[in-house]
Amino acid sequence: MSVLSIEIKSEKCERYPTFHVDESYNITIEDVYGKIQANTIWGALHGLTTFSQLHFVTDGNQLVINAPITIEDEPRFPYRGILLDTSRNFLRTSVIKKHLDMMAYNKFNVLHWRIVGDQSWPLISKQYPTLTEKGAFSLDHVYTPGDVQDIIEYARLRGIRIIPELNAPGHIGALGRAFPDFLINCYNESTRQIIDPTKTEIYSFIEIILKEIKQTFENEFYIHLGMDEVYSACCTSNLNLEKFMNKNKMSKYTDLMRYYTSKILDIAQNIGAKSMVWQDVWNDDVKLPLEVVIEIWKDDSWSTYLSKAINEGYNVVLAAPFNLSMMSYRKYDKLDSVMNAEFSKWYNIDLFANFIGDETARKRLIGGEATLCGEFVDDFNSLSRFWPRALVVAEKLWSLPDVNNMYDVTGRFHIQRCRLHNLSMY
Amino acid sequence: MSVLSIEIKSEKCERYPTFHVDESYNITIEDVYGKIQANTIWGALHGLTTFSQLHFVTDGNQLVINAPITIEDEPRFPYRGILLDTSRNFLRTSVIKKHLDMMAYNKFNVLHWRIVGDQSWPLISKQYPTLTEKGAFSLDHVYTPGDVQDIIEYARLRGIRIIPELNAPGHIGALGRAFPDFLINCYNESTRQIIDPTKTEIYSFIEIILKEIKQTFENEFYIHLGMDEVYSACCTSNLNLEKFMNKNKMSKYTDLMRYYTSKILDIAQNIGAKSMVWQDVWNDDVKLPLEVVIEIWKDDSWSTYLSKAINEGYNVVLAAPFNLSMMSYRKYDKLDSVMNAEFSKWYNIDLFANFIGDETARKRLIGGEATLCGEFVDDFNSLSRFWPRALVVAEKLWSLPDVNNMYDVTGRFHIQRCRLHNLSMY
Repeated sequence: MSVLSIEIKSEKCERYPTFHVDESYNITIEDVYGKIQANTIWGALHGLTTFSQLHFVTDGNQLVINAPITIEDEPRFPYRGILLDTSRNFLRTSVIKKHLDMMAYNKFNVLHWRIVGDQSWPLISKQYPTLTEKGAFSLDHVYTPGDVQDIIEYARLRGIRIIPELNAPGHIGALGRAFPDFLINCYNESTRQIIDPTKTEIYSFIEIILKEIKQTFENEFYIHLGMDEVYSACCTSNLNLEKFMNKNKMSKYTDLMRYYTSKILDIAQNIGAKSMVWQDVWNDDVKLPLEVVIEIWKDDSWSTYLSKAINEGYNVVLAAPFNLSMMSYRKYDKLDSVMNAEFSKWYNIDLFANFIGDETARKRLIGGEATLCGEFVDDFNSLSRFWPRALVVAEKLWSLPDVNNMYDVTGRFHIQRCRLHNLSMY
Repeated sequence: MSVLSIEIKSEKCERYPTFHVDESYNITIEDVYGKIQANTIWGALHGLTTFSQLHFVTDGNQLVINAPITIEDEPRFPYRGILLDTSRNFLRTSVIKKHLDMMAYNKFNVLHWRIVGDQSWPLISKQYPTLTEKGAFSLDHVYTPGDVQDIIEYARLRGIRIIPELNAPGHIGALGRAFPDFLINCYNESTRQIIDPTKTEIYSFIEIILKEIKQTFENEFYIHLGMDEVYSACCTSNLNLEKFMNKNKMSKYTDLMRYYTSKILDIAQNIGAKSMVWQDVWNDDVKLPLEVVIEIWKDDSWSTYLSKAINEGYNVVLAAPFNLSMMSYRKYDKLDSVMNAEFSKWYNIDLFANFIGDETARKRLIGGEATLCGEFVDDFNSLSRFWPRALVVAEKLWSLPDVNNMYDVTGRFHIQRCRLHNLSMY
C-alpha cells in the first residue's frame, strides 16, 4: 500500500466532540490504495486508529496489510467512558494523558473526571483559592487552570470529551477543610459529612463553583453532579436538619433531598449545563427532569435499575457491570484468568437480559463506563489497573451484541495487548 | 548543612557486592557538617540512600534536615531479595532497571532473576541460539548478552547482586520447543513435561548452559537451580523412566531425583558456582550438601520448614511469607487496606514464631525475598504490583524484630511512598 486518502463528508468541522456525534467510518484498501471515509473528523480519527491496527509484521520484518479490506464501522453506544477519580488519590497530568492515549487507541470517547471529593480538592478555584490551599493534599497536588486546559486539549485531539464531576452533597469532605460551616455532621449510620442544605450561602457557593467549572470545560455540555451515598438516616440524626425540615413542612428525607436537588439542577440549567447524577438520588424517589442522565453503579441489581430508568424515559450510563476494582487471583486454566481480564464477568453479559420495553427505550441506554475504586489506585497503579483490562469494556461498548464469543475475544484481547506493549503506551 | 563527608574504612574496594558483605553505615549530622561512615562502599551507598531520605520540605519550599542526627544502621539479614520472572511474561530491560532503582532506594540487595521457564526462553545462548529462536515469545522478546551486562552493571552500581535461576528439571517447557527430545511427558498428576534425567546428553547440555550463565554472571557466586514442582507420580507414569529406574536399581522417585540432583550439583560445583534450590527437592528427601541454600516458598507450613532446614544446618531464604500475589479488595477502614499493602499478613509476623533451636541455627536464616506470580504480571503491572507494597518486606528484612508496631509502619510506609512518587520512580 502506498497511498492513503481520508475523506470527511461533513462541511462543518466541529472543534470538540459532542454527545451523539457521528463516529462512523469506512475503510477500503485495494492494491496500493487505502481510503478512510467518515462523516466527521471524529469518525476519521477512529478510522485512522483502526487503520493503524490493521498491519502486522512478517518474519522478514515487513509491514503487511492483508488487502483487500473493506470495513464499515460505527459504535453501538455513543457514550463510552472511563472514570478517573483524582480526589481519593491525586493523579499527575502525565498519568491522565497516558489514560487518554489508551482510551483513544481503544475508542473510548468520554473521560468522566471526578475531580474533587472527600479526601482532597485539587482543582484550583479562582474565586476560592482556599479550597486547594486547605483542601488539596499539598500545594503540589493541584490542577492549575493551565493543567486542566492542557488535559482538555489533549483529549480533544483524540476525540474524547471530558465530563467533570462535582459530587455533592455527600463525598465532598475536603470542602469542610476550607469552609467548615458548609458541612454538617451525620450522627447516624454514616459518620460522613454532607453539605448543609439549609444554608442559603451554600447555593451561591455551588453556583460560583459550577460556573467556574462550566467556564473551564466550556465546550462540554454536561456536568456530573454526583448525589450518591447521601443517607436518609443522616437527616434524623442532626437536630438542625430536623428543625429545618419541620419549619419547611418536610416530612421525610426525600423532601429535603428534593429541595436540595431542585436548587442544584436549577443552578446547572441557569449556567447552561446539562446534568448527570449517580442513581442514588433517583432511587430515593426524587423526581428528576427527564433530561438528567442517570448513571447506574450499584452492583447487585443494575439490570433492574436499568430497565426501570429507561422505561421512565431517562438516558442511562451504565457503570455497574464495568467496575474493574475486583481482581482475580491465581485462577489458572480459565479463560478469565488471562491478565486478570475476567472476561466472564464483564464480557459475557447481555446488557438487556432482564429488560422489558420497546426499542425506543433501549436507545436510552446511551453507554457505559469503566470504573475503579479510587481509594486503591494512584500514580503507581492507575494505568496498570485499567489497562489492558478495560479493553473488554471498550469492545462491549463499541461492538454489536452478537459479538460475544468468549474464545474469540481472548484472541483479540491478546493481540491488542501486544500492540499496546509494542507502542509502550503505559 | 553545607558539607557532607563520606569515609569508607575498608582498603579494598570490591567491584561487586557479595553475600555477607558488611553493609553497615553511620550517619552523623551536626551544625553544617554531615558525615557518612561505612566499612565498605556498599554500606556507604546505603548511607547515601538514607541521607537522601532525611530531609523534608518546609512550607517555604526549603530543604531542611532535623539536626543533630546520629544513625547507626545495619541490616538484620544479609539476603534481601526480589524475584522477577521473565519466562511467564517478558519484562523489558527498562522495567527491570526501574525495579533495581526501587530496590536500591529500599535497600534490597538481591535480584533473583528467573530468566527462562515453561512459557519462554528469552536468554540468548551462544552455543544454542535455537533456544531463543524457538523458545522465546518472539525474536523481540529476548535478552542479548549486551542487555544482560547492562542490567548487571546497573544493579552493581546500586549494590545489588543478581542471582540467575535456571529452573530444572520441571518448569522448563520452553526447552522442549528447541529440543523436544530433552523433555519427557508425565502422564500422571501433572501434564507438564520435565527434563529427561535418563539421557546423558542432558547433562552435557546443562553443563554448557550453566557455564554460559556463570560466565555471564561471572561475579556472582550463586546460581539458583530451581528443582520445584517435580512430581513423583511422573516417574511411575512414564515407562521409559520406570525402565531406567529398574535398570539402575532405583526403587523410588527419590532415588531418581537424587541421581539427577547429584549430577547437577556436581556440574555447578565444577564450574565454580554455589547452588540455591527451591525447597521441593529437599522435601522429597534428597539429601543435599549443607552448602546448598534452600529457598522456602510453600505458603502453609513455612515456619515448620524453616525450623527443620536451619536445624539441619542449611542456609535458608524465605519467600513464603513475602508473596505479594494476593491482592485485597475494597477493605476500607483497616490498616492493611492502605494501598493493598496488607501489613497484617506480611508485617506482623515473627519469623521465628515456631522455631526451636539455638542462636547459631537462627543465623542460618539468611534473609527473604518478595515474590509475585509471573503469570499475572508483565510490563504493564509488574512495577505497580511490587511497589510500593514491597516496602513492607524491605523493612521486615532490614530492621530488628522489635520494629513491629503496625501503627508506626503505616506512617513510615506513607512517607516512603510519597518519596517514591516525588522521585517519579515508577
